[in-house]
Amino acid sequence: MIPRCIQRSHFALRLRRIDVHSYSSPHGLRFLTASPTPTPSGSRQFLRYGRKAAKYAAFTCFSAVLGLSVVIGGVFIHDVFTYSDRHIDRVPVSPLALHPECGGPNNLPVASVLVGDEDNSSLVPIKDKPRLVIVGGGWGAVSTLQSIHPGDYHVTLISPDTFTTFTPLLPSAAVGTVNVRSLVESLRKVIARVHGQLIHGRAVDLVMSERLLEVETVSVNGETRNIYVPYDKLVIAVGSVSSTHGVSGLQHCFQLKTIADAQAIRRRILDNFEMASLPSTSEEERKRLLSFVVCGGGPTGVETAAEIFDLCQEDIINYFPKILREQVSIHVIQSRGHILNTYSEAISKFAEEKFQRDGVELITSARVGEVRPDHVIYTTKDPDIGAVVEHTIPTNFVLWSTGIAMNPFTARVSSLLPNQVHKKAIEVDAHLRVNGAPLGDVYAIGDCATIETSLVSHLLELVEEACWTQDGKIDFDEWEIMVKRIKKKIPMASLHLDKVRALFDLYDSDADNKLNLNELAVLLQEIGNKITALPATAQVAAQQGKYLGHKLHLLAAKRDTLVANELPAGADEAVTGPFTYRHLGSLAYIGNAAVFDLGRLSFTGGLAAMYAWRSIYWSEQVSMRTRALLMIDWIVRGVWGRDLSRL
Amino acid sequence: MIPRCIQRSHFALRLRRIDVHSYSSPHGLRFLTASPTPTPSGSRQFLRYGRKAAKYAAFTCFSAVLGLSVVIGGVFIHDVFTYSDRHIDRVPVSPLALHPECGGPNNLPVASVLVGDEDNSSLVPIKDKPRLVIVGGGWGAVSTLQSIHPGDYHVTLISPDTFTTFTPLLPSAAVGTVNVRSLVESLRKVIARVHGQLIHGRAVDLVMSERLLEVETVSVNGETRNIYVPYDKLVIAVGSVSSTHGVSGLQHCFQLKTIADAQAIRRRILDNFEMASLPSTSEEERKRLLSFVVCGGGPTGVETAAEIFDLCQEDIINYFPKILREQVSIHVIQSRGHILNTYSEAISKFAEEKFQRDGVELITSARVGEVRPDHVIYTTKDPDIGAVVEHTIPTNFVLWSTGIAMNPFTARVSSLLPNQVHKKAIEVDAHLRVNGAPLGDVYAIGDCATIETSLVSHLLELVEEACWTQDGKIDFDEWEIMVKRIKKKIPMASLHLDKVRALFDLYDSDADNKLNLNELAVLLQEIGNKITALPATAQVAAQQGKYLGHKLHLLAAKRDTLVANELPAGADEAVTGPFTYRHLGSLAYIGNAAVFDLGRLSFTGGLAAMYAWRSIYWSEQVSMRTRALLMIDWIVRGVWGRDLSRL
Repeated sequence: MIPRCIQRSHFALRLRRIDVHSYSSPHGLRFLTASPTPTPSGSRQFLRYGRKAAKYAAFTCFSAVLGLSVVIGGVFIHDVFTYSDRHIDRVPVSPLALHPECGGPNNLPVASVLVGDEDNSSLVPIKDKPRLVIVGGGWGAVSTLQSIHPGDYHVTLISPDTFTTFTPLLPSAAVGTVNVRSLVESLRKVIARVHGQLIHGRAVDLVMSERLLEVETVSVNGETRNIYVPYDKLVIAVGSVSSTHGVSGLQHCFQLKTIADAQAIRRRILDNFEMASLPSTSEEERKRLLSFVVCGGGPTGVETAAEIFDLCQEDIINYFPKILREQVSIHVIQSRGHILNTYSEAISKFAEEKFQRDGVELITSARVGEVRPDHVIYTTKDPDIGAVVEHTIPTNFVLWSTGIAMNPFTARVSSLLPNQVHKKAIEVDAHLRVNGAPLGDVYAIGDCATIETSLVSHLLELVEEACWTQDGKIDFDEWEIMVKRIKKKIPMASLHLDKVRALFDLYDSDADNKLNLNELAVLLQEIGNKITALPATAQVAAQQGKYLGHKLHLLAAKRDTLVANELPAGADEAVTGPFTYRHLGSLAYIGNAAVFDLGRLSFTGGLAAMYAWRSIYWSEQVSMRTRALLMIDWIVRGVWGRDLSRL
Repeated sequence: MIPRCIQRSHFALRLRRIDVHSYSSPHGLRFLTASPTPTPSGSRQFLRYGRKAAKYAAFTCFSAVLGLSVVIGGVFIHDVFTYSDRHIDRVPVSPLALHPECGGPNNLPVASVLVGDEDNSSLVPIKDKPRLVIVGGGWGAVSTLQSIHPGDYHVTLISPDTFTTFTPLLPSAAVGTVNVRSLVESLRKVIARVHGQLIHGRAVDLVMSERLLEVETVSVNGETRNIYVPYDKLVIAVGSVSSTHGVSGLQHCFQLKTIADAQAIRRRILDNFEMASLPSTSEEERKRLLSFVVCGGGPTGVETAAEIFDLCQEDIINYFPKILREQVSIHVIQSRGHILNTYSEAISKFAEEKFQRDGVELITSARVGEVRPDHVIYTTKDPDIGAVVEHTIPTNFVLWSTGIAMNPFTARVSSLLPNQVHKKAIEVDAHLRVNGAPLGDVYAIGDCATIETSLVSHLLELVEEACWTQDGKIDFDEWEIMVKRIKKKIPMASLHLDKVRALFDLYDSDADNKLNLNELAVLLQEIGNKITALPATAQVAAQQGKYLGHKLHLLAAKRDTLVANELPAGADEAVTGPFTYRHLGSLAYIGNAAVFDLGRLSFTGGLAAMYAWRSIYWSEQVSMRTRALLMIDWIVRGVWGRDLSRL
């Protein structure tokens, strides 16, 4: 039965060695054949070895099942202890929390003490700590919360949602590749670490003179009630809304910024497929129902198009009439010449080729003119005649994902401060303090903030600091010192200030080896223009939150020292340097393939890249809970496909 | 280091034995110490044994991790193959499917061919099979679908939801113990097995003479369009709606019959807690927001009350201000004297005692008078003065779960048939054929159907069948034959017909040893009144669906034989007997405890019973997918608690 060649092989020889000597398995267990009989023939050895291998495999399987059972059993035993008989009686609550006094310009209730402030003895010392109020529940807010230490502040979080969302995976959630609940973590669980409190509401106004934040809460029967939340330090991290670019009819579009958006998109997509398979649907209507239009060729738009393609290719094809899959059309309308235009050229090209293979239509260099309930109108320039041509795509699904704009609260804060002129966000200094607000009182981070890039506005300050010589000019030595000062004030300018000598010579237009005030102003203006603002990404918000949280902790920890040294509030420079952004790379999923732009390196690929893309997002999760849920979602999708239920 | 007593122990002795002899582990692997040194001292042996045990444990752990990794790896490898490059071109579609002809009394499009009918070659023979149309997507419909064989019929499913729901766990989903998506399975996946098609719509009317079902579909822009779906056999399994019992204000109540209900309840509960913790909420409002009222002491009501209690006790207590937990009140209003009154007395008592310990208020023998937006009014009878007393509970959450009523389609079908007089459901015969409809055309199962219990309506038929003697009376022998016939027609009467002789004597009022027509009529009437209708439970619907699916398969399989024997359509008796219900028991979850009523046996208990309750529901799942998701949900709840995010 067993060929002779095998009997004589190294395999058989090794078997014989095992028989004589003890053999250490790689897992640190020692095995030895215990047979007292003389060395048997090769074939019998082989059989015995096979039996042993089978036993070994069986044992491994058994151990795996046992291990898993032990884990599940452990969970269930743990389960038992979550059902405890805890009774709560006579919780101490300050009368001021139950009946807040009114105050402020609008004479509203001031929430100076909250009902949860005296819940247990460990909270009592926190009650009188400086009040840190964080507005928002996204990347910036959560990352700040995760960086401060329990007991540093009396923390209050104001958020219109009770959860934080892992926004980069919203396109996956929009088609059901992952579950929406796997992307959210309750903010109450996030703030529990710092013994903070959540107020479910929307910030609407700010009274900086009295350090009061006006919050709109929704009470029973849907009526709104405004209250004041007092703060010592305020962090604004409210994010942004989508920019309209002046296009009309955007009420017919979907956006993809929140969980509610993802849920609405999923419902619409499944509705479209269900309606398309109805006998009462005409041929023309079916084609319109199966036409999906994405306006915007950035990562969100591209990933959503890719996810819709995946849904059609992997699930719709299996469970809906085949004609639906045949008639599906996906269109991406991009104003620039390429999709993913902020990524490297190689990446844009890779993504465009992938989409071309998949039959996803890319409409580049096109402007969306109007969105109507049943079609999208866009214009392109005809390269031959140079005229603008108008096109129409009939559709029942339009996603609008192009750029950001201020949300109402950001706009209100901006309007309160005369020196705030930026149109899309609140301008902050390099320490993330809101320009124009009382120093050290108000910070802004994430999409709602932009770090000032204008050097020229610091001209006078710089000139004052420099040992301005009698002739009203600065020489090269002074310029070198000034460059250091600029780099400290506006770190983002550093890149453009590297060639100190060359710059000096370039702008020294009268070649007197000195810069006069005019020459300096031109230099600062032009360098300022060169600085690119940080992108409105999760990465920036998270890094800013981490920086700010760390700084807030240092300010709290060194409070006594700062006071002893008579340093004013907002002396952030005393504890830490300005915020510096470290770009870790951009990535995007493009349908069973992914692209990575890591600055100098860029990387594109198929399934392996997709798994790498998943791993990165997996590691960035807020909690182990969402990490586990996400992994389960991917496995469940792999085994059973997406859930096609329209909930 | 090691006490002498241990050195001398049996433990040490066993060690010595291992040293000399080979030792078979219980897992079938043989271990032998390979040391060539002489027998060492006890303590050294002990150390070595410890090392070995540690190695063994490490190996088990390693194997478990390895096994799990292999499983996950396997899934991901499988994952790769789900991303295939499948292109679909020129799907064959009948022109009649694209442009259906109009017909029927309302001249609507008749969906005689569907767009998916020719999707692949395996569907072609099915196209011309008899058309089985199933209306509904619940227990009855799914269980019918699971019992017929692929190819028996051209199957079309009409459902207003695209998924089937595991209704018994809706109370768990309503507070987030399990995820709603773990309770649903896409109907498209369920019908894929029998190559069926789904029409997403609502049945509104029936033209029995032309065998057309009128279906209302929702098309683009929300406009409704009605179509006709032709059938050869129709199964009505549309379920029921909640009974109002004439109480006004039910629009302020929640129900718990669908996934949407569970989602709405979860949102309301979390809203209540969020609003209760706002500084702008008054003491009185807080108490009202934290008051939860359940009307109905049946399993759904009791389980929901228990789940709300669990939520408060296990999650709210940890993440919300403690005063909320203190002020929570849960009230169950029951019209009968006990909750779970259809269960055994021991069970009712156990549940009542458990609720009392938990502080859940039970209001028994009470009638809800009215539900207003901010309170519930109920009345009780004062036992002392005998007068009716009115009470009020301020609340912001009322669940209404008392009894069932006809949904509009059931009512319409009932109104079309003059002999249908039942108020809550369509009456069917013991073969589940709708009484009055063309025999064998229309079946009804589940909550929307009730099996006839009236024997007296069969009087004439029975008399005709009996060899009616000249004197217009039947003797005992004829009575015995008649009893057999009755048992066959109405098996639910069997229980009451066991004592054949006693019955005969009892109703033979003139003691002439014969029953005359009047005596027989009284007998049949009174026995008919004794029969209890089957409860409106998932268990009944599932058994009826299974029975019907099996019968439909037999009718299809024996079609040729039936035709050859010239048996008419609806000759169900030729292939199978009437439906008989086997009660497998009732169970209910009552908050970290569960009760089981298995007919003669009843069983109550704490956590162990809860796990048994979970196991039963787990095994009853529609698919492995929901089984896996449910298990994961329970584990996730055990480890991280419920998700408190208000989505």
